[in-house]
Amino acid sequence: MDPDRLQALLDDVAAGRVTAADAFARLRRLPYDDLGFAKVDTHRALRAGGAEAVFCPGKTPAQVVEILRALVVDHVNVLATRADREVAAAVAASGLPHVYHAQARLVVARPERRDGVGLIAVAAAGTADLPVAEEAAVVAESLGNRVERVDDCGVAGLHRLLAHREVFAEANAVIAVAGMEGALPSVLAGLIDRPVIAVPTSVGYGASLNGLAALLAMLNSCAPGVSVVNIDNGYGAAHQASQINRLVAKIR
Amino acid sequence: MDPDRLQALLDDVAAGRVTAADAFARLRRLPYDDLGFAKVDTHRALRAGGAEAVFCPGKTPAQVVEILRALVVDHVNVLATRADREVAAAVAASGLPHVYHAQARLVVARPERRDGVGLIAVAAAGTADLPVAEEAAVVAESLGNRVERVDDCGVAGLHRLLAHREVFAEANAVIAVAGMEGALPSVLAGLIDRPVIAVPTSVGYGASLNGLAALLAMLNSCAPGVSVVNIDNGYGAAHQASQINRLVAKIR
Amino acid sequence: MDPDRLQALLDDVAAGRVTAADAFARLRRLPYDDLGFAKVDTHRALRAGGAEAVFCPGKTPAQVVEILRALVVDHVNVLATRADREVAAAVAASGLPHVYHAQARLVVARPERRDGVGLIAVAAAGTADLPVAEEAAVVAESLGNRVERVDDCGVAGLHRLLAHREVFAEANAVIAVAGMEGALPSVLAGLIDRPVIAVPTSVGYGASLNGLAALLAMLNSCAPGVSVVNIDNGYGAAHQASQINRLVAKIR
Amino acid sequence: MDPDRLQALLDDVAAGRVTAADAFARLRRLPYDDLGFAKVDTHRALRAGGAEAVFCPGKTPAQVVEILRALVVDHVNVLATRADREVAAAVAASGLPHVYHAQARLVVARPERRDGVGLIAVAAAGTADLPVAEEAAVVAESLGNRVERVDDCGVAGLHRLLAHREVFAEANAVIAVAGMEGALPSVLAGLIDRPVIAVPTSVGYGASLNGLAALLAMLNSCAPGVSVVNIDNGYGAAHQASQINRLVAKIR
Amino acid sequence: MDPDRLQALLDDVAAGRVTAADAFARLRRLPYDDLGFAKVDTHRALRAGGAEAVFCPGKTPAQVVEILRALVVDHVNVLATRADREVAAAVAASGLPHVYHAQARLVVARPERRDGVGLIAVAAAGTADLPVAEEAAVVAESLGNRVERVDDCGVAGLHRLLAHREVFAEANAVIAVAGMEGALPSVLAGLIDRPVIAVPTSVGYGASLNGLAALLAMLNSCAPGVSVVNIDNGYGAAHQASQINRLVAKIR
Amino acid sequence: MDPDRLQALLDDVAAGRVTAADAFARLRRLPYDDLGFAKVDTHRALRAGGAEAVFCPGKTPAQVVEILRALVVDHVNVLATRADREVAAAVAASGLPHVYHAQARLVVARPERRDGVGLIAVAAAGTADLPVAEEAAVVAESLGNRVERVDDCGVAGLHRLLAHREVFAEANAVIAVAGMEGALPSVLAGLIDRPVIAVPTSVGYGASLNGLAALLAMLNSCAPGVSVVNIDNGYGAAHQASQINRLVAKIR
Amino acid sequence: MDPDRLQALLDDVAAGRVTAADAFARLRRLPYDDLGFAKVDTHRALRAGGAEAVFCPGKTPAQVVEILRALVVDHVNVLATRADREVAAAVAASGLPHVYHAQARLVVARPERRDGVGLIAVAAAGTADLPVAEEAAVVAESLGNRVERVDDCGVAGLHRLLAHREVFAEANAVIAVAGMEGALPSVLAGLIDRPVIAVPTSVGYGASLNGLAALLAMLNSCAPGVSVVNIDNGYGAAHQASQINRLVAKIR
Amino acid sequence: MDPDRLQALLDDVAAGRVTAADAFARLRRLPYDDLGFAKVDTHRALRAGGAEAVFCPGKTPAQVVEILRALVVDHVNVLATRADREVAAAVAASGLPHVYHAQARLVVARPERRDGVGLIAVAAAGTADLPVAEEAAVVAESLGNRVERVDDCGVAGLHRLLAHREVFAEANAVIAVAGMEGALPSVLAGLIDRPVIAVPTSVGYGASLNGLAALLAMLNSCAPGVSVVNIDNGYGAAHQASQINRLVAKIR
Repeated sequence: MDPDRLQALLDDVAAGRVTAADAFARLRRLPYDDLGFAKVDTHRALRAGGAEAVFCPGKTPAQVVEILRALVVDHVNVLATRADREVAAAVAASGLPHVYHAQARLVVARPERRDGVGLIAVAAAGTADLPVAEEAAVVAESLGNRVERVDDCGVAGLHRLLAHREVFAEANAVIAVAGMEGALPSVLAGLIDRPVIAVPTSVGYGASLNGLAALLAMLNSCAPGVSVVNIDNGYGAAHQASQINRLVAKIR
Repeated sequence: MDPDRLQALLDDVAAGRVTAADAFARLRRLPYDDLGFAKVDTHRALRAGGAEAVFCPGKTPAQVVEILRALVVDHVNVLATRADREVAAAVAASGLPHVYHAQARLVVARPERRDGVGLIAVAAAGTADLPVAEEAAVVAESLGNRVERVDDCGVAGLHRLLAHREVFAEANAVIAVAGMEGALPSVLAGLIDRPVIAVPTSVGYGASLNGLAALLAMLNSCAPGVSVVNIDNGYGAAHQASQINRLVAKIR
Repeated sequence: MDPDRLQALLDDVAAGRVTAADAFARLRRLPYDDLGFAKVDTHRALRAGGAEAVFCPGKTPAQVVEILRALVVDHVNVLATRADREVAAAVAASGLPHVYHAQARLVVARPERRDGVGLIAVAAAGTADLPVAEEAAVVAESLGNRVERVDDCGVAGLHRLLAHREVFAEANAVIAVAGMEGALPSVLAGLIDRPVIAVPTSVGYGASLNGLAALLAMLNSCAPGVSVVNIDNGYGAAHQASQINRLVAKIR
Repeated sequence: MDPDRLQALLDDVAAGRVTAADAFARLRRLPYDDLGFAKVDTHRALRAGGAEAVFCPGKTPAQVVEILRALVVDHVNVLATRADREVAAAVAASGLPHVYHAQARLVVARPERRDGVGLIAVAAAGTADLPVAEEAAVVAESLGNRVERVDDCGVAGLHRLLAHREVFAEANAVIAVAGMEGALPSVLAGLIDRPVIAVPTSVGYGASLNGLAALLAMLNSCAPGVSVVNIDNGYGAAHQASQINRLVAKIR
Repeated sequence: MDPDRLQALLDDVAAGRVTAADAFARLRRLPYDDLGFAKVDTHRALRAGGAEAVFCPGKTPAQVVEILRALVVDHVNVLATRADREVAAAVAASGLPHVYHAQARLVVARPERRDGVGLIAVAAAGTADLPVAEEAAVVAESLGNRVERVDDCGVAGLHRLLAHREVFAEANAVIAVAGMEGALPSVLAGLIDRPVIAVPTSVGYGASLNGLAALLAMLNSCAPGVSVVNIDNGYGAAHQASQINRLVAKIR
Repeated sequence: MDPDRLQALLDDVAAGRVTAADAFARLRRLPYDDLGFAKVDTHRALRAGGAEAVFCPGKTPAQVVEILRALVVDHVNVLATRADREVAAAVAASGLPHVYHAQARLVVARPERRDGVGLIAVAAAGTADLPVAEEAAVVAESLGNRVERVDDCGVAGLHRLLAHREVFAEANAVIAVAGMEGALPSVLAGLIDRPVIAVPTSVGYGASLNGLAALLAMLNSCAPGVSVVNIDNGYGAAHQASQINRLVAKIR
Repeated sequence: MDPDRLQALLDDVAAGRVTAADAFARLRRLPYDDLGFAKVDTHRALRAGGAEAVFCPGKTPAQVVEILRALVVDHVNVLATRADREVAAAVAASGLPHVYHAQARLVVARPERRDGVGLIAVAAAGTADLPVAEEAAVVAESLGNRVERVDDCGVAGLHRLLAHREVFAEANAVIAVAGMEGALPSVLAGLIDRPVIAVPTSVGYGASLNGLAALLAMLNSCAPGVSVVNIDNGYGAAHQASQINRLVAKIR
Repeated sequence: MDPDRLQALLDDVAAGRVTAADAFARLRRLPYDDLGFAKVDTHRALRAGGAEAVFCPGKTPAQVVEILRALVVDHVNVLATRADREVAAAVAASGLPHVYHAQARLVVARPERRDGVGLIAVAAAGTADLPVAEEAAVVAESLGNRVERVDDCGVAGLHRLLAHREVFAEANAVIAVAGMEGALPSVLAGLIDRPVIAVPTSVGYGASLNGLAALLAMLNSCAPGVSVVNIDNGYGAAHQASQINRLVAKIR
């Protein structure tokens, strides 16, 4: 409730147009019910083209279907992340309109294709990083962004990375996905002047500590302009990259 | 602002006893200033006898004095924790009425002695744990609780612990302070049926990892009835023990 | 053996009503068998309505049944925690009177419904935290407490949390269950003046380190009044919350 | 060297306006000095108003002065970060035009005030987080951004945070600085739809593990839209926030 | 080759009773083959009643059988540790004389019962620790020691521990097996003056970190007289306890 | 592009032999396309006898076959590492000429036997370390090196290690493979003056932390001349040992 | 109170030789005061020649002096460990009879030389490990054991270790002190059949993690017969070695 | 003692040219004293131009001087590592011929300049890494190798690294020194086919964990051909690089 509406309400009470009891009923829940939070949630979906994503692990396929069915009533491009083939089969059996991106482990329910705006570049260091990179790319596309993928551009073969420098320099946000030593974001951020969102992956073994080595490396990037999300969190990187790209594209 | 006062204010507006503008001035800050949060803050001080504590590390002695001076306007028994002798000297030079508890590293500004209610027992495993235990004990006393201290009752000398079993069994909350292997809370919780709040200390060396060993041990207690606060956090343990003891004593 | 009974026994010996040999037989085991520890154990069950809980992992279904069968002779509401469906089936096949709470993974053997006293609030940050929260809630109910559940009130949607502020403020103890960043207990403890027992869960991935991130966050709560139990330890939180709530309700 | 200038140079050689020897002298360092990488570096300074920052720890005050003296030849608003009072005194004694921001531990050499564009909000959870938050704020201002500071808005006092919701919702990027449990970014990202760059601080003790607890919490944020930089890295957060804000403001 | 035999050999060469070539053949392997190491190995088996143990994980059942078959040629009471039922079945099918201790996960091949000497006490904190405690007990028995088991004597029920104080005080070495908070060795070492070999177990969950919490606690014991072996290493504890007990019993 | 070729190109432009446009086309990609990286890759295979290895985990057997089929067009002795029996079966079914080394979990596609040059010694501490040691040995052989294996030479039986001292002293590089306490490289480096490449293995349990204990021990070797690769990384050790050995043998 | 004395007391009461009140006074403290624990403490000092040691860190020199003064009333060879020169000076100024072992950082108050029994060998890997090794050696001597020191026998120079094999093989207990990779205990335990108590030291840097690397290595020893104490805990190792050696020497 | 000399000795005994007693005196220490270990030590110094290095931390300046004085009797270019200015002053005052390399924190006692053989390249990522890189470079030079330094070639400015590609490709061993994210070795190993010895440094803050982040990154290098030494261990890297380079140069 903004000040103008509060003033108007109190004027109405003073003028007898609204009873004290009615005003009380509206104002008593003010501290929490009407703070605007819920509105933000609703607006977010309308603006950005997708509802809150469903994180599948720990839910039964039936539960995922049920939640998706509820969300698609009001939303398009509803995402179910980390969806394995069993979940995908359950969604297919449910009759819900959807697309399943197997490598990205993503279900997009009530899919609605739209022209992407701006540009987000998604770089993957190795082929083993592709599931996470694809998650980021498909999520970003579902949120209405134009996406360019650059695969297999790890730092052990710089020529592959340098060959795509223009794409990175043009993007409004770059998502850099890498496991093992996680050096890709540092090298990228040294080449371009765009925000790099680094996604460490659990690719590796032994002292990779399930992705902790890459995570720590990225947090210690010697190149400014790098921020980091959780290990394997392609969804989170895409969400923030979309916030940035769409702000730049002025269409939020 | 509680419902009764809101209803009364609106009645006053409806009856013309308060103008809409005056009501607006009071209500406009409602979404945040008067959400009830601040009230809680104010009420807490009135009920429990102390304001939010000042954590000294990272503040200059002059800053601590300044903050204390502001807080004692409305509060008694204002606490400054982890106060070294330099801070204590600055408070003494400031002319603020206060008591300095050197071992507990606590300043109590505008001290006001009161009869403690209920009972909180504070057990310390070794003499090196006494600074933390004393912090807990003095904080609990400042918050209006009756406190019994049991020192040097570590598990390597069970007879010393068992000698005080009655005190522990009678308390409404027991604070168990221990470093090194941190076994005291488990043994205590096996003897009595009262909530045990465990405080790991950084006492130890090598594999004690600055208190992490004791912390982990306490979190893994095989005896139910133990919860844990941060390493060396005597203040936090005393705060929660006071919440419990005063609830039991029904004088909040 | 309390002092009065010891005095009486010795008087009986002095008066010839009890022989020295009979007194010896009773007193010789005093140093350990009758130190009061065992008595505490027995009394705890009588008062609180439940025996020591059976932790199922590492035990065969047959072993769990056998232990439960022994405990229900003297106790009601005997708990078996972390009981999977295989254990539940074995209990069902055994003919023991019981209830199985699937989400909470709890068997309550020889269940006896009673009116709960006081109030314990159990808050769960997300749906994935529900198994742990339900464990806490059902355990607390089995121990004779009144319980209110508040689900899905994580800090990313404050409005849901604030909507239930009265429940938390009224409770004698609040159990706050959260994984991922584990921020719920801090926010709760900032809103109310009741003891908050925080339960980190292993919900999350990557840098959640199987719940360590939430555990560390909770231990570092900037709001006083928070203590913490082991990861996923709904049972332990409920046990301590019950100790507090029943002390306040004065019916121990 | 950008393509246009290269094309022009070659045209000049073809036309005889420049000798092959002169062109060789300019181009011979092309593979590295002018590979385009260096260009980016130079352009960055021209556009954003500042050169690469000097990280002071490990350098003598004399070395810092020497490096600054070299950089201010071509740049304005040259930053020296983590500059203690000894460094500041050396800079002052050197006669270099500069401003020293004591709390932010920043020297800005050859300072040039400019009107900031767009909006970056910098939120600090507690007063102990202010040095890092100020570093972020002053760096962002030096890079030509408009900055709003919101101090002391930690999650234990939500009303202070909610009071500034409009500022956060309006910003093109939000920098959230917090130590201890590090919950501020999660709560902020739940309230607004703008990119939140989280900066964990080393504020805390014991299980805060010098900021690791806050770092892990932030990486596990349950609210999408959060990315994280290194502990106490206010500079890095400001750099990326500036990249975002200036992209949105279209003035790069 | 001991000095006397070397002197005799050289005397023989000098006297012509042994040719230089024959002496050379014997001495040439001296630097390694006959350094006394191998002798130690052989002697150890003769004295202590068992050969080097076979650690089964990572070996196929067939490989275990093959190794056992080779070892029983020269040794009795040959141990295969961490032997699951599949290994046990393979040994049974092989026709090798043996005993399988299921709870201890031990195969004793070519078993030979003997009267145990001295006394080793094996204490287990909880029933879940029994597999490790049994491994220790059976290994100690196989090595020719008298063993007393004290089960379920964790610190949450001190009376059970105290009831067996005499056994511990009489033993030449005490093996204390505990998971979770690992407090048993500290309490034991405070009660008696005998060497306590602590065995942390992986029993627990969450912050037990697969036994690391117990391990750290034991290393930080506040009672002197405790040393520690690897997590779940009942075999290693029994080996060292046997070295001690048999030294005391003077029968090595 | 080296200086001579650049000078020549510019001379050609000045002389009209090359147009400015053609020169521009060649020079604009200079920063990345023509740096010689790709050439290095190609040369490496020709010189060293093998292409980049295929790391199988995370790839389907079909994918591994497909990649191998592509690589064998230009290369011999193409390696697929960590290949389980399912992968081996798929390769066998594909008709590709190959050898499968089961213990080393290696497929060598289009195998071509050659005489090894120089000498690499591969030492394995225990039988459980053999899969990693065999991986190192077979990879080194595939890369054209002469290899000597010394198995079961852990530090608990020094005589076995000392028996092979000549082999180690003669080698141009020694690969030391050990799990558990990882002491083998230190002892080896104290005996010889050749580079020791240490490979920690995940052999062990409990406090071995999946190989971290061995890794840390090796990094802290008190004997100079030891460097370390990732846990279980036999391939990496062999690759570097081959670089060294072949440099010494001057046949690269 | 042993059974005989209890029976006698009750007989006295029955016979009127002791009043019930007097018996009550003696028996009421039975559950804890006279459990035999205190007696053990007293006996330990008498038998072993030393009281509980005083750990100096965290105590002022004056406090150390005060505690020593109290202990020397009843004990000889009272130890103050980790005593720096400031503590030593305070003890010297106090007039207490004492010896200060500077390298071992030990004060022995009221020193009383005695002939050592049995044999304890103390091996130090490097010169930097000598302070810890000396602490172990002097403590063991103070407790009445014969001690042999073997310095600088780290595994990078096996010949130095092997030169002293007889000393180790003759000892009843071997204390092995090593930092860095901590391999000494494994090698020692492979050479001899005596209990090896391993003491990791904080000697090292970087990945030694203040001694954790050595600690982990020792816990993972591939040679049976090794147990481990806390980092730098020479005192604890000596205490247990003394328990073993004196048991073997039968003079406890 | 090699076989020929043993045979000759025995022949001499058989022939009466050597008495059995004299032969015994020589052979009795054979198992350890003359195994060749000591010889290796002596030979190493003669060949490589330097004795074992003295690690200064934990030693007094006087002790360092004393050790150096002993070593220079037989050796030239004796190294004292991690020598601060206090040590340097003590060496200067001692009159020992020496050179002090302040940045490298190295004393070279009895320095003897020689022409370096082969080539070792030492790359440093940033200026803060120079002390470690200089330690490596000066040690390598003291051991008789030709060394090329490439400073400030971190991955955030690839052009600086690429400019020196020829140096790296020509070297027989490359030492890559980097802190923070530690990406330099991966990028280098992707460019060249020479062994890369990676040295993580403790340069960084926060999540660099004193160099652990760089260490982990280097161990997980996606480019084969990288091995790693301890954090800040420039000496160790130089030692191994020298072993390799001198083997290649065939002048050992």
